[in-house]
Amino acid sequence: MQQPIQNYIEHTLLRPDISDKDIENLIDEAIKYQFVGVCVPPYWAKKARRDIGKNPIQLVTVVGFPLGYSRSEVKLKEIESALREGVNELDVVVNISAIKTGMYGWVKAEIAQFAKMIHEQESFLKVILETAYLNPQELEQTAKVCIDAGADYLKTSTGFAPTGAEISTVQRLRSLAPSHVGIKASGGIKTLTQTEAFIEAGAERIGTSASIAIMEQWQEKIKHS
Amino acid sequence: MQQPIQNYIEHTLLRPDISDKDIENLIDEAIKYQFVGVCVPPYWAKKARRDIGKNPIQLVTVVGFPLGYSRSEVKLKEIESALREGVNELDVVVNISAIKTGMYGWVKAEIAQFAKMIHEQESFLKVILETAYLNPQELEQTAKVCIDAGADYLKTSTGFAPTGAEISTVQRLRSLAPSHVGIKASGGIKTLTQTEAFIEAGAERIGTSASIAIMEQWQEKIKHS
Repeated sequence: MQQPIQNYIEHTLLRPDISDKDIENLIDEAIKYQFVGVCVPPYWAKKARRDIGKNPIQLVTVVGFPLGYSRSEVKLKEIESALREGVNELDVVVNISAIKTGMYGWVKAEIAQFAKMIHEQESFLKVILETAYLNPQELEQTAKVCIDAGADYLKTSTGFAPTGAEISTVQRLRSLAPSHVGIKASGGIKTLTQTEAFIEAGAERIGTSASIAIMEQWQEKIKHS
Repeated sequence: MQQPIQNYIEHTLLRPDISDKDIENLIDEAIKYQFVGVCVPPYWAKKARRDIGKNPIQLVTVVGFPLGYSRSEVKLKEIESALREGVNELDVVVNISAIKTGMYGWVKAEIAQFAKMIHEQESFLKVILETAYLNPQELEQTAKVCIDAGADYLKTSTGFAPTGAEISTVQRLRSLAPSHVGIKASGGIKTLTQTEAFIEAGAERIGTSASIAIMEQWQEKIKHS
């Protein structure tokens, strides 16, 4: 491991039943632990931007989340709104239903539209592949079209599918992607051991809502090493 | 029971990993069994409209689904797109996060905006309350603001929360709503027995992906009665 563990962690809160207080706590914790980013629902992005202030924390939100089957024009509107509110990184769910219909050319064109809009604002596009639903061939072909379309990161999971990130999937994505495309592991990551294993497998970012527990385990480990 | 059971059933397919073939089957089944409606992802609404043709089946799609925390402007865009594609009924997830922040006035204003746009096209607005996350006071207050804002139906659940429709919740909603507002029960309804119990409790619509099994149980019951 090259860097302190907090440099990998996007402190995440995407449950549908959170309140303004939960967002305030999330930002306070991110400032305290110096997490690389926070990932919040679209509805809370504007407040999160204000609460982050001048702190060096990336503001991340989600698009077409978590099912991926919104219309392109709706995802574009969602991206446009988020960018206007100062979001730095957009985690967009790929249209899994279009993949299952074999429409890879369409998927590539859709992601390319998103990349153009996001890159014009010097922000990052992370494409969530929701790997739980993809077989190895679909995973490979989807990763390829997303890379070709300009994705900055490939992200494994929403956390709302039957399974989340898996080590073998992260290794596979890392081997498929060129070095300028990062991998974000997310979904079911709850411990320091898991976090370190995903980083070892090639993840540059870890999306988790168990960030505080992971940091406490990390600090304990540092103390005894 | 006043009517044949198919008059209550919205034949539903909202999984993220369905293909064009799954939608074709859904519409074929809806035509065969004469279901009152089909409920499909936004991405498939246009195809569903074409496949339904002149058959008397309501086309239903979802908005802000399933987490409810999209921005208002994004939900409005989603409604506008759906109406343009000929959707008859829109099942919109309420902003649960705003409810948890106590913003009932804002929730009412948001739903009223949706109602205006939808009613101008002579379509129906169903508000999904996602009752799994609401305590009795929140349920009552949310139902009230949605009714005042112009909802045509109150719908219990997305099917993606920890729990779905419950009999006591449907009874409570039925007692809170005036007679011109319908109740749609959805989430975890898999059998004829459940379906009949929810209708008895006051539901006018049943959203389910187990429609075929329910119809087969119904036909079996009719045969023996």
